[in-house]
Amino acid sequence: MPAISHVLETALYVADVDAAVAFYRDVLGLRVLEQGPRLVAMDAGQATVLLLFRRGATGSGADTPGGRIPPHDGQGPVHVAFAIAGEALGDWERRLEEHGILIESRVRWDLGGQSVYFRDPDGHSVELATPGTWAVY
Amino acid sequence: MPAISHVLETALYVADVDAAVAFYRDVLGLRVLEQGPRLVAMDAGQATVLLLFRRGATGSGADTPGGRIPPHDGQGPVHVAFAIAGEALGDWERRLEEHGILIESRVRWDLGGQSVYFRDPDGHSVELATPGTWAVY
Repeated sequence: MPAISHVLETALYVADVDAAVAFYRDVLGLRVLEQGPRLVAMDAGQATVLLLFRRGATGSGADTPGGRIPPHDGQGPVHVAFAIAGEALGDWERRLEEHGILIESRVRWDLGGQSVYFRDPDGHSVELATPGTWAVY
Repeated sequence: MPAISHVLETALYVADVDAAVAFYRDVLGLRVLEQGPRLVAMDAGQATVLLLFRRGATGSGADTPGGRIPPHDGQGPVHVAFAIAGEALGDWERRLEEHGILIESRVRWDLGGQSVYFRDPDGHSVELATPGTWAVY
């Protein structure tokens, strides 16, 4: 059977796109790939893309020259995790502190990985996780 | 500054975890990594993990031996995209048809990539995308 390579796009729905972009770009260091009225796409590394959709702006789909993008929309403070190097965890904690981001929780996983959790401007639960979080990471 | 490697975990919130697992495992071919009362984690390839959370089961967080996982919860039919090889698109279309999955839309992107869109059991908008969708993919 055909195979999936990896998760390509992860969507977050945000109330204030500019605030979300500032957070993911200036605090987490992601680069803006494309910016439009419905969404901002950010390069999250290794051919993974973070999509920041303006809440309520995607419920009726969108026509593009190449075809129609179906409707979708999300609510609630959801979860997303980003991979970081194990040796970078301390630097990340300092960086979050410098930006006034409260670390809500720390978790040490059975496989040896460690995670820190904090909130983005929309209250989404963001995790930075070092290798040893999953059997595949 | 420290760097993010890639998006590690992408969360979907689902009404019926068994139905969602059956879809992502049997139709899309993802492997179950871990299964618990709150979530099922699936290997989506290249150290990306799809988390299927039972809707409403994660709003109060969770204690683990290594620390506390903060609360989160999501609603609405959101969007997620998976990367596939360009030469696999036809096989994927046939596979979806064999499973009775309606292809809701097809899009051809400026960079040459192609996408097909369909719905999972919760109505989430799932995309399979070939290379040439983004500057980084």
